[in-house]
Amino acid sequence: MKKLFFLSALLLMSVVTFAQQALWGGAPVVSPEIHDDNTVTFRLKAPKAIKVQVTGDFLPAIPIETPRGIWEGPGIADLKEGKDGVWEYTTPEPLAPELYMYSFIVDGLKIMDPSNVYMIRDVATVTNVFIIGGGRADLYKVNDVPHGTVSRMWYHSPSLNMDRRMTIYTPAGYETSSKRYPVFYLLHGGGGDEEAWINLGRTSQILDNLIAQGKAEPMIVVMTNGNPWQQAAAGESPLGFVSPTLRSPEAAKAPEGAFEMSFPEVVKFIEKNFRVKKGKKYRAIAGLSMGCGHAANISRYYPDMFDYVGLFSGSASARPNSTCPVFTDFEEKLKIQLQDKKPALYYIACGKTDFVQEGLKKYLKLLDEKGYKYEYFENEGGHIWRNWRIYLTEFAPKIFK
Amino acid sequence: MKKLFFLSALLLMSVVTFAQQALWGGAPVVSPEIHDDNTVTFRLKAPKAIKVQVTGDFLPAIPIETPRGIWEGPGIADLKEGKDGVWEYTTPEPLAPELYMYSFIVDGLKIMDPSNVYMIRDVATVTNVFIIGGGRADLYKVNDVPHGTVSRMWYHSPSLNMDRRMTIYTPAGYETSSKRYPVFYLLHGGGGDEEAWINLGRTSQILDNLIAQGKAEPMIVVMTNGNPWQQAAAGESPLGFVSPTLRSPEAAKAPEGAFEMSFPEVVKFIEKNFRVKKGKKYRAIAGLSMGCGHAANISRYYPDMFDYVGLFSGSASARPNSTCPVFTDFEEKLKIQLQDKKPALYYIACGKTDFVQEGLKKYLKLLDEKGYKYEYFENEGGHIWRNWRIYLTEFAPKIFK
Repeated sequence: MKKLFFLSALLLMSVVTFAQQALWGGAPVVSPEIHDDNTVTFRLKAPKAIKVQVTGDFLPAIPIETPRGIWEGPGIADLKEGKDGVWEYTTPEPLAPELYMYSFIVDGLKIMDPSNVYMIRDVATVTNVFIIGGGRADLYKVNDVPHGTVSRMWYHSPSLNMDRRMTIYTPAGYETSSKRYPVFYLLHGGGGDEEAWINLGRTSQILDNLIAQGKAEPMIVVMTNGNPWQQAAAGESPLGFVSPTLRSPEAAKAPEGAFEMSFPEVVKFIEKNFRVKKGKKYRAIAGLSMGCGHAANISRYYPDMFDYVGLFSGSASARPNSTCPVFTDFEEKLKIQLQDKKPALYYIACGKTDFVQEGLKKYLKLLDEKGYKYEYFENEGGHIWRNWRIYLTEFAPKIFK
Repeated sequence: MKKLFFLSALLLMSVVTFAQQALWGGAPVVSPEIHDDNTVTFRLKAPKAIKVQVTGDFLPAIPIETPRGIWEGPGIADLKEGKDGVWEYTTPEPLAPELYMYSFIVDGLKIMDPSNVYMIRDVATVTNVFIIGGGRADLYKVNDVPHGTVSRMWYHSPSLNMDRRMTIYTPAGYETSSKRYPVFYLLHGGGGDEEAWINLGRTSQILDNLIAQGKAEPMIVVMTNGNPWQQAAAGESPLGFVSPTLRSPEAAKAPEGAFEMSFPEVVKFIEKNFRVKKGKKYRAIAGLSMGCGHAANISRYYPDMFDYVGLFSGSASARPNSTCPVFTDFEEKLKIQLQDKKPALYYIACGKTDFVQEGLKKYLKLLDEKGYKYEYFENEGGHIWRNWRIYLTEFAPKIFK
């Protein structure tokens, strides 16, 4: 009888769902459909639409002129209307393995695919996502391997005078072993927060998979919030459901170098509350874009702290007018870090068409002139998450070995 | 120079964002805008649209006929087109404090608000959300109080023969104290998973706030996945980005009562890996709808396990044809639980217009006939998250006292 009742409840809910669909014009269509040959079909039920398009990074990029040169915008393709007002587009070629982002454009209005509940926020833009497996992209999938724990945790920052949120990955087995682990601090870019690496970066999947394959050491990954004026990601702080922006008006309030200078507070919190191996050789730091600057600055300012440094899509340079100790005596501090206290790895990665290449080339030239040792990885593409996931999969296996 | 470079990068990104908006027809409009008097304006830039509507639970409900009676569907209101193709609707009256869900309907196509990045998935439907503060709804907000940790963690279930994911809330101070805590097991409904209570239920916000106000004891909250055929929430298991359904085809594979019988594995895992107070008086269990059945069944089948039981929007009843030990000797087991081993609290909550009321009335009648003690809370409304959040705020302060 309970079962019967339960089935009735389910039936009711189906009816409700159906009613909702009838009401909302929701589309009980499959989209995206990934075919066996890795071509992909996108579908949208929109009987009243005049024009339906799909835009995303799986399509050939569209060059967009900007003051800093050509930027590669996501491509656009037209869907064709078929039976029952269902519009459809199938990629002419199989897609290469990758995590892709896309949206629909219906009569000029950008919308998300109502048939796909998987979406990721990047600053103020939310797009749908899908994964074509195979090759490196298999690292981005949840596979049948032991899984680590992902925690959102708050710590107190005395120097920033606030409680702040961070995201922490502990590897599979952390709870059940008494082992101590090395710690990798992984920093986001401008407009990001403590959610960026775990969501867009697929950090937990990448680490689960690399560790299971024996390619990376079991490690704790700490993803901080690098915006010193901010307690937590949009929607996760007392500010409520504010609209995220690339740079909040509060940003100006934080003194230069505030996040960098506060970093020992993060390390102290982690080393107090987790079973970690202490000391320089058990600490790594890396970041992308703004976080790349942070990683370079923090590791230079605290040269005894990190033996592994990863700079993704960015660099560092002197700020001659700065009075903040993070930036004064730039070359002297760099010498201490890279020559006197030589780290085990100073790894730099950047895309060939990344707009930061100009600044990076100057930095590499400086490192070369001084004879400082570093490892450089360059690949196709620009300032995009696709590359940051790649750099994480390249960097993580190189540390703590 | 670094700063200049950073600003240039920001400028580029702004340009890109602008270009994307131009490209995508994105709407740089504010929506929803919550005014000081708690009226709310919704806006959508859609110059080519013929008709734009908003649908959500903040509007007067629309009755929908179903085989099981009238269901209250979300209301609908028309937006009016104004300048530059921006459509607008302002609620005629201030909205009462609450977490509300809504979507737009553009020429019959249900879409999410492109100006609002805050959205929650409920089974296969994603809707935007916003909060009107005040009263009980202040418990749903992130306030300036100490925050607990939220972890997604995997455990091994020998009886279900798989690794499974759960969501765990540990109260503020857990990491820095050596205290032991009581544990509250909180179970989701049909179509839900280990993400339901933490997202739709605002569990971490509610617990942070109730604990900070001294109304609830600091406690650990464990939100399991109650679908015994499933390792984890949609997108979080090796099945990948599958389309969530109310009931997956795999559901039939799991034997009746499999989740209920496996529950001691969850308790064992938690008590091994967290600093908990052990024993019946330090354990509570509650669930909604399907999870209400689970909570009733588990607490009845394991009468020495929980001193606090919460049944939200559901009940339990005999299954005369079942051979599963969870369901055999229903009344005898209920007697053992509620009379011989009387729990400290047997709490039942349900909405007046909930479709489960018929089954629940039979259950209450049985409890009354037998003279078993329980506490009953009845309020307006039906089988909806608004009520489950209320029941959580009512139940949590009553346990471990």
